[in-house]
Amino acid sequence: MFNKIKTEGKARRGCFTTVHGTIQTPVFMNVGTAAAIKGGLSSLDLKDIGCQVELSNTYHLHVRPGEKIVKEMGGLHKFMNWDRPILTDSGGFQVFSLAKLRNITEEGVTFSSHIDGKRIFMSPEMSMQIQSALASTIAMAFDECIENPAPRNYVQKSADRTVRWLQRCKNEMQRLSALPDTINPNQLLFGINQGGTYADIRIENMKAIAQMDLDGYAIGGLAVGETAEEMYDIIETVEPYMTDHKPRYLMGVGTPVNILEAVYRGVDFFDCVMPSRNARHGHIFTSSGILNIMNEKYAQDQTPLDPNCDCQTCRNFSRSYIRHLFKAKEMLAMRLAVIHNLRFYNRLMEDIRLALDENRYESFYKQQKEILGKRI
Amino acid sequence: MFNKIKTEGKARRGCFTTVHGTIQTPVFMNVGTAAAIKGGLSSLDLKDIGCQVELSNTYHLHVRPGEKIVKEMGGLHKFMNWDRPILTDSGGFQVFSLAKLRNITEEGVTFSSHIDGKRIFMSPEMSMQIQSALASTIAMAFDECIENPAPRNYVQKSADRTVRWLQRCKNEMQRLSALPDTINPNQLLFGINQGGTYADIRIENMKAIAQMDLDGYAIGGLAVGETAEEMYDIIETVEPYMTDHKPRYLMGVGTPVNILEAVYRGVDFFDCVMPSRNARHGHIFTSSGILNIMNEKYAQDQTPLDPNCDCQTCRNFSRSYIRHLFKAKEMLAMRLAVIHNLRFYNRLMEDIRLALDENRYESFYKQQKEILGKRI
Repeated sequence: MFNKIKTEGKARRGCFTTVHGTIQTPVFMNVGTAAAIKGGLSSLDLKDIGCQVELSNTYHLHVRPGEKIVKEMGGLHKFMNWDRPILTDSGGFQVFSLAKLRNITEEGVTFSSHIDGKRIFMSPEMSMQIQSALASTIAMAFDECIENPAPRNYVQKSADRTVRWLQRCKNEMQRLSALPDTINPNQLLFGINQGGTYADIRIENMKAIAQMDLDGYAIGGLAVGETAEEMYDIIETVEPYMTDHKPRYLMGVGTPVNILEAVYRGVDFFDCVMPSRNARHGHIFTSSGILNIMNEKYAQDQTPLDPNCDCQTCRNFSRSYIRHLFKAKEMLAMRLAVIHNLRFYNRLMEDIRLALDENRYESFYKQQKEILGKRI
Repeated sequence: MFNKIKTEGKARRGCFTTVHGTIQTPVFMNVGTAAAIKGGLSSLDLKDIGCQVELSNTYHLHVRPGEKIVKEMGGLHKFMNWDRPILTDSGGFQVFSLAKLRNITEEGVTFSSHIDGKRIFMSPEMSMQIQSALASTIAMAFDECIENPAPRNYVQKSADRTVRWLQRCKNEMQRLSALPDTINPNQLLFGINQGGTYADIRIENMKAIAQMDLDGYAIGGLAVGETAEEMYDIIETVEPYMTDHKPRYLMGVGTPVNILEAVYRGVDFFDCVMPSRNARHGHIFTSSGILNIMNEKYAQDQTPLDPNCDCQTCRNFSRSYIRHLFKAKEMLAMRLAVIHNLRFYNRLMEDIRLALDENRYESFYKQQKEILGKRI
């Protein structure tokens, strides 16, 4: 149940109630691809960071350890010891970005595993079956994610098929949720809007999926080749057709500035590997811009990564020490940097929510996007 | 100041007071080679694990980031945010095990850095200067560590030189501790007994260094090629000549069984990379023996690594989950396993101390060495 608490222009401040607790939006979901956060973080660290929703990948967990084991272990929540909401993506994105030798038919996709090359078949029904076994809070529809730009004909054909697949996802999820051994009979299902960079296909697709009355709607197929301006344009194009009283999720996005811009245009949910991936390369998000901790000037810097940050890393360790850990290739370097960057993202969302609560998002957003994109 | 609280046969229960706090012995020191624990553990994790003494490496910190930076940052304690005792080894072991193209003279050793091949000179005085800049609680003498077995002539020559080097270490440490900008003017110095597997050389060497009235004495040059029985024999040979009211440290040892045997023979201090190194390969120490978490039989095992363990890993995660993390090559696998193995070692020492306190070490040791060496 999504409850819109407040709006300011298109921007929305809401809360989304699930069986695993209420999510305050706008929210950033922290990515734990294979039921673990890259950089050596556990579910205990996620709590510390203020994470509301953990995101895991259907494709990765299907390949290893397999959804049967996870179900046997009591579902993903119990498996990874996380009692707050979990969103599982459908595997669609991974099938189209990681896997090789794809063959798409109306029935589904046959592809080669990125681990051992084994042929795997995935259909909308199978994606739902896997996600039901994982027992996430929110399941995502199985879709085809196309790189931008793509030929109009193909995008149209793919978007139409994705609508038919969505109906099959919905039917299968209803069937699965009614089964007696289902771990989470209240599993939610979000639909995904596709259509590449073609405004009319996007709108047509959004209208079609909005009619299906799903628990939320995502904008998919962005941050896969188009410019930031094209991405903002598509959000603006699609947004009026997204159900107002359902959460809106912009998949795989993005930089702090991208998030500020997308919230401004009415988006509620985000996820991205950027904070953890950048952290692992020493790129640190701070309240005064982005810094590269490998820079010589930090060798004797006793201040924390971000003096305004309240994370475990910033409360305990200096730039000098963290730079040393990166140079010495110590695993701890990555862990401390990832903890900081993820806390930075979660705190950015807290600040966004507070600005919305206090009716000052417009000025907050304009001020912050100038600062957060800078390299210092 | 070492205070022997109790003895049972040769075994000793003591406490060693330093400017950074009192160490309860027998103690296992946790290895943080380059001022970080392998597997992504920080000083905060060491507190959690019940670590009393952290051990860092003079050689590694000299090469990177360099002792000047560490001193500039306020010393190793401040650099890594650890306020309990730190022992720094002298670099001797690393110079002889890691570095290449060594040239040893009476003055010191010239060798090639394992990082960039750069020629480095290290003398007893330089080792003391580096350790003084790091400002550890306990500095180790600069010695030559020879692999076993080695020719008698060479061992004799090397042991004699190590005695002369020890006197130079002591003189230099006295000079450094009196300097006005010294961070830790109370830095302690431990001497190191050498002599390979030759009982008479070991005894002669121990007698010579015992006269120098150092703050503690280590047995070096063990666990470098000889059998466990040879190691126990050497401890028994040397022990009567080790000063009774000074702590005794068996360097780089060892398995839980090695530690039980050495405590039985009168040793107080231990350090070893084994718990963290084994953890990183999935070899887990438990209260009922050693298990390999990669084993298929743990794929659906919901119990913790060791049901009798109180560590963060065992309180929160299952064998099934940890096995999955290893298979998926997630960094978190190593972190969780290292946390457990280090806690296992620190708890073994707690149990050893309790058995000594309660005058039942003999039976405890006999029972435990049967269990802890088993593979399950």
